[in-house]
Amino acid sequence: MPHRAPGAPDGAGRPDYLTGKPITYYRPRGSSELRTLIDEGFQAFNAARLSEACRIFSDKMLAPENDTTIGLTIAGALTPAGLGGCIVELMERGLVDFVISTGANLYHDLHYALNFTLRRGSPFVNDVDLYEHGIIRIYDVLFPSKVLLETDAYIRDFLERIGVDEPIATSELHYRMGQDLLDQQPGCEEYSVLAAAARYGVPIYTSSPGDSSIGMNVASHALLNGSRLMIDPNRDVNEVCAIVLAGRQNGCVILGGGSPKNFYLQAQPTLWEVYSIPKGGNDYFIQFTTDQVVWGGLSGATPAEAVSWGKVNPGGLPDTVVCYCDSTIVFPLFSEYAVGSKWGRRSRKELVHKRDDLVAALKREAEAARDMPHQAEGDPETMPDLERHR
Amino acid sequence: MPHRAPGAPDGAGRPDYLTGKPITYYRPRGSSELRTLIDEGFQAFNAARLSEACRIFSDKMLAPENDTTIGLTIAGALTPAGLGGCIVELMERGLVDFVISTGANLYHDLHYALNFTLRRGSPFVNDVDLYEHGIIRIYDVLFPSKVLLETDAYIRDFLERIGVDEPIATSELHYRMGQDLLDQQPGCEEYSVLAAAARYGVPIYTSSPGDSSIGMNVASHALLNGSRLMIDPNRDVNEVCAIVLAGRQNGCVILGGGSPKNFYLQAQPTLWEVYSIPKGGNDYFIQFTTDQVVWGGLSGATPAEAVSWGKVNPGGLPDTVVCYCDSTIVFPLFSEYAVGSKWGRRSRKELVHKRDDLVAALKREAEAARDMPHQAEGDPETMPDLERHR
Amino acid sequence: MPHRAPGAPDGAGRPDYLTGKPITYYRPRGSSELRTLIDEGFQAFNAARLSEACRIFSDKMLAPENDTTIGLTIAGALTPAGLGGCIVELMERGLVDFVISTGANLYHDLHYALNFTLRRGSPFVNDVDLYEHGIIRIYDVLFPSKVLLETDAYIRDFLERIGVDEPIATSELHYRMGQDLLDQQPGCEEYSVLAAAARYGVPIYTSSPGDSSIGMNVASHALLNGSRLMIDPNRDVNEVCAIVLAGRQNGCVILGGGSPKNFYLQAQPTLWEVYSIPKGGNDYFIQFTTDQVVWGGLSGATPAEAVSWGKVNPGGLPDTVVCYCDSTIVFPLFSEYAVGSKWGRRSRKELVHKRDDLVAALKREAEAARDMPHQAEGDPETMPDLERHR
Amino acid sequence: MPHRAPGAPDGAGRPDYLTGKPITYYRPRGSSELRTLIDEGFQAFNAARLSEACRIFSDKMLAPENDTTIGLTIAGALTPAGLGGCIVELMERGLVDFVISTGANLYHDLHYALNFTLRRGSPFVNDVDLYEHGIIRIYDVLFPSKVLLETDAYIRDFLERIGVDEPIATSELHYRMGQDLLDQQPGCEEYSVLAAAARYGVPIYTSSPGDSSIGMNVASHALLNGSRLMIDPNRDVNEVCAIVLAGRQNGCVILGGGSPKNFYLQAQPTLWEVYSIPKGGNDYFIQFTTDQVVWGGLSGATPAEAVSWGKVNPGGLPDTVVCYCDSTIVFPLFSEYAVGSKWGRRSRKELVHKRDDLVAALKREAEAARDMPHQAEGDPETMPDLERHR
Repeated sequence: MPHRAPGAPDGAGRPDYLTGKPITYYRPRGSSELRTLIDEGFQAFNAARLSEACRIFSDKMLAPENDTTIGLTIAGALTPAGLGGCIVELMERGLVDFVISTGANLYHDLHYALNFTLRRGSPFVNDVDLYEHGIIRIYDVLFPSKVLLETDAYIRDFLERIGVDEPIATSELHYRMGQDLLDQQPGCEEYSVLAAAARYGVPIYTSSPGDSSIGMNVASHALLNGSRLMIDPNRDVNEVCAIVLAGRQNGCVILGGGSPKNFYLQAQPTLWEVYSIPKGGNDYFIQFTTDQVVWGGLSGATPAEAVSWGKVNPGGLPDTVVCYCDSTIVFPLFSEYAVGSKWGRRSRKELVHKRDDLVAALKREAEAARDMPHQAEGDPETMPDLERHR
Repeated sequence: MPHRAPGAPDGAGRPDYLTGKPITYYRPRGSSELRTLIDEGFQAFNAARLSEACRIFSDKMLAPENDTTIGLTIAGALTPAGLGGCIVELMERGLVDFVISTGANLYHDLHYALNFTLRRGSPFVNDVDLYEHGIIRIYDVLFPSKVLLETDAYIRDFLERIGVDEPIATSELHYRMGQDLLDQQPGCEEYSVLAAAARYGVPIYTSSPGDSSIGMNVASHALLNGSRLMIDPNRDVNEVCAIVLAGRQNGCVILGGGSPKNFYLQAQPTLWEVYSIPKGGNDYFIQFTTDQVVWGGLSGATPAEAVSWGKVNPGGLPDTVVCYCDSTIVFPLFSEYAVGSKWGRRSRKELVHKRDDLVAALKREAEAARDMPHQAEGDPETMPDLERHR
Repeated sequence: MPHRAPGAPDGAGRPDYLTGKPITYYRPRGSSELRTLIDEGFQAFNAARLSEACRIFSDKMLAPENDTTIGLTIAGALTPAGLGGCIVELMERGLVDFVISTGANLYHDLHYALNFTLRRGSPFVNDVDLYEHGIIRIYDVLFPSKVLLETDAYIRDFLERIGVDEPIATSELHYRMGQDLLDQQPGCEEYSVLAAAARYGVPIYTSSPGDSSIGMNVASHALLNGSRLMIDPNRDVNEVCAIVLAGRQNGCVILGGGSPKNFYLQAQPTLWEVYSIPKGGNDYFIQFTTDQVVWGGLSGATPAEAVSWGKVNPGGLPDTVVCYCDSTIVFPLFSEYAVGSKWGRRSRKELVHKRDDLVAALKREAEAARDMPHQAEGDPETMPDLERHR
Repeated sequence: MPHRAPGAPDGAGRPDYLTGKPITYYRPRGSSELRTLIDEGFQAFNAARLSEACRIFSDKMLAPENDTTIGLTIAGALTPAGLGGCIVELMERGLVDFVISTGANLYHDLHYALNFTLRRGSPFVNDVDLYEHGIIRIYDVLFPSKVLLETDAYIRDFLERIGVDEPIATSELHYRMGQDLLDQQPGCEEYSVLAAAARYGVPIYTSSPGDSSIGMNVASHALLNGSRLMIDPNRDVNEVCAIVLAGRQNGCVILGGGSPKNFYLQAQPTLWEVYSIPKGGNDYFIQFTTDQVVWGGLSGATPAEAVSWGKVNPGGLPDTVVCYCDSTIVFPLFSEYAVGSKWGRRSRKELVHKRDDLVAALKREAEAARDMPHQAEGDPETMPDLERHR
């Protein structure tokens, strides 16, 4: 048997799971020391990609003359990890114009808004033991299962309180939820993405509306209370298309990948492929991910591949960057850099209040395009013909 | 400069992109030679995980006495890669009872159903050049952009033809689309997942209904034609919960991860957390993925972590397995093994026709639970108290 | 607390670690069913890369008219996982001409040669408990620590028995060890890579000679017995260069990456950069790895990047392929395909007996090149000048 | 064809490869703003692992009362990426006692020592074109191939100048090379790892001595000049064992993985398995890597698995951490934190001058252990018996 150092402890002893520090919404402060490190010390490999992403965002996407409409997409458990503070800061400063998030990130944001405590922990714990003790684990974030039940109770109360009885967009549901939080928990825009988004007029969309505890409770409201409140995905699709169509320039910051990435990126193909509207692809594209292109999925697909779909402007590839790193490390660094940059505050677009007008404009353009001969098929001389198997 | 071998070609010359072999829906045949390799040659590391997955599926999940309700979730571009044939084979044989898929996989399945040709290609091509020539790329799968436009035209015709003018579940939309394909393209259940699912009564759900070209065209139908057809995510959530609730045992095969994985796995938490129904978690859990647990997202989360959420039965961990490999390699191997196994054909559950009854049963149980004292909070002696920050 | 299914077991109960099936050296048999699957069912993404790798190897590298000198490099714990049988089969059939391996793979091969049993297990075990019970774990492969001690005892006996008292190449050490195994364990060329390599004349190199239990025991022999036996890395470098130089065409199969990959690939740069000999780079390049190009290391570096170093012929990129997958899954599939192919048996080069002649030829060419004006610096018109910081 | 924005550039135009900023050796300065971010903002997932690693290193490994002997292992192209500055800073401050590096990192360090310029570039360049223009690429680092030839010329001159004609340890070769650089390029300890190591008495080992351009030139020196200078891996193995044996506590910082990781970690198994010396495993273990445990290789193996081999003290698992991230991002952050910490400067051990004494002590202890009854086999009651296949 391998020798053991004399007196080495044996690792036994039952851990007390909920003793780690509470996780809080850290707010980036624009550290100049960090800026120096990113500019001078991050010179190659993914460090250089992060450095490029910081400069593309701060020097180009935020430049007033470009007036870029900026979408932020969020996948992966970022609010449980305390990254909501970066998102709040970017929204408050006008650096992000709309958000597409998984439902889970918004659901877990509610724990913060409602002042429930999530704690730092370890991923190396016994899940059967956690289960016995009613503790929920998100990788290394731990909290009592009561947090889920109380958060669900809030959602159900909210759904009854607002009295909506028809299909609505997720942007509308989230806006109303944010306003409700501002009412119920004054000041919570400091520690809630949903509340801050409502305060600062940032629409938040969810591409998979049934796919979180928020969606589960909406479904329960329909089943048990006979409510006709439901999410209307059509409205979501058309609102995002309308926002992108209205952008002078367009750019995105993609955290992770997943269906929020796809939901954002499909706006341009919807315009040319479905609505026959000749709007080009994204001018700027920043992604932080740990997925890889070689697995073939959309999460890991490159900006180059997106060019072939019209999602990214072919001439814009120099302004695209993918940095392969866990968002929990790079998103705070990126946010610090942006906050401390020359254009670290923009006037907010407050798109949540302009959604109806933008969709109306989209409808007008699409109707006009429908009445025109179809332009979207390219040059018949060079386009490959359609082949059929049989 | 490094020396070059005399006469070495210079790699130049313009590739002719659409010359690769057509991609077809390969159907697994139950190879016994492959079974031998998997049993005897796949002994450690991910090869052993694949071997375990094959045995859990074939020996336990398919065993008649367990009567397992089996969900298959699909993320990543598997139909473009030709893996629809494996899915068709499993559905036809009754080895999969319901499916949760990204919209993209179903949209690209339509190309096969409609006989358009996708071709084998290379991921190392110039996307700006592809764009100039109207060729679309999905990693190494290439096809003319006309395929998209013609597929969209089919969807729009279909939407007008069915004349639905109200919210419906994705299972209903896909069932009707499959029936329409069977009408329009007789025999296409051999080369279309949507058509085969309709033929064999397998409901197909999409967790992110607006997030694909199908969803884009539904949204366009609403915007331009004033249709009230929309996806009702509530119905999807409740149908999947009802199917899981009705299962004697439950098990899943997860390809990739993403929102389909979450949508499947949330059924059990919905039951205990939202509906207060004491149904345990999954009895069997098989995942093929290239995501990693250390990135912290749901796609890479382990069955162990799922135990703490009540998604997997704590005693069932021996019957869970994650194999880290590209689905394009392991899913055909897994399917060959299953097809050739002792219980390689089961009587089909044809759940698509039982959805109303199952949802009614869910509603009854949930109403009964609502009228009972809440049982879902655990032992107040051992449960941690709720903490609040402020 | 999440509900638990009534009667669900609690996962407790002490596992008996050494009850899994013994791991054996599976020998590929040339399955035609597998060949069909690879040709017809593996059409896109990494499945297509595997399919390409099979065809490049079987149709081009093995083609008699190309007379390719084929190097196999091995990193990752493949012999513990039972993959030694594939390597033995390829060597016996003349499909691999020389091998570069980590020392660990050769050390663990000795357990098989000496008939010690390694067993299938689980990666999810308590390592502190394993440690208490004297069980060694390699991911999911388990065996008693006595296996290490007995294997070490064999190595020490061998070192004393051969009586070498001077620096030698690793190819010589491994050849003598293989011969000793053939003597001590007749027939063990069926279940030992080292023994089979000696029998079939395949030289085996280790790039990191001190970096395994073999190297540890050689070092102990020097320290405690005053032996002057040591590994001479110079001889290894020059032998590999000489083998590559003598190849009519050159190609490699790289399992994993690591220092064996680098050691193989540096042969061509050594020739042009150090010996000024104008030999081009590799004609064929096949790698199976799970590392990624975006991490920037050599293990994940692409054949394209290798072109800039003269490691791969610029015109040869169509004959290079990287398949991203665990070797335990793809290497048996690849070996089955090769064994069953048209040229699934070649006459063996038996390079182990030609090493002196090849090194002498290298020395002659290098001396001739030294006496010539230096040709390796490229065209002074187009070469960038050397820059200095200070 | 997807629409293109009017006026979008077409991405054409030949890049001028060597126009990026020169890469320099960034020196960490102990930023307190960064410390705040790491302590307060890095709360979960890999950000939390980095935060833990910073605290384990700064609060425990550097604590004077623990007197930890600290090894740093380096794999991946870190000196080309400019990370040599962090290594120099840690050595100068006494925070690292010895180093195990791939040869490539030391070879590329010579470019900096000799004042040749490497430049920031892009990984998305045409390698055939680079090859035509004599430009070498390491992922996104670009430089003329003349840099290689001139660096090789320096090495050859050095080898002739020092006149060593016998086997030596890599620590000796690197120490002499560092001294030579200090002579030839006064002040270069500021921008060369090799020079700084010589100045500050830090021994540097290479586990794969033939596996770099340094090793290639040593081999050429032997072949063409008849030199008997060679690397003696036995001496390397025994020196590292002796250093670890002498440590009051032992700890490591592992960048990447690869053979340097293995070479470091095998020291403790060598002690118990080969030399029968009862020294326990590592007390502290920090790794930054992008490899994954599920691929089964040593690079991705966890500290827990290392416990079963006696490489890590079983009771020390709380003081082990693996952070999954590209070293180019996390190593500068980690170094900034350490430099700014309470014990950010230690008295240097200058082990390079103590190697003979330490090896002599190892020899004495090993001889004493050899004369004792063997203690390393554990309790015969509980140890599993050795099994044999045949």
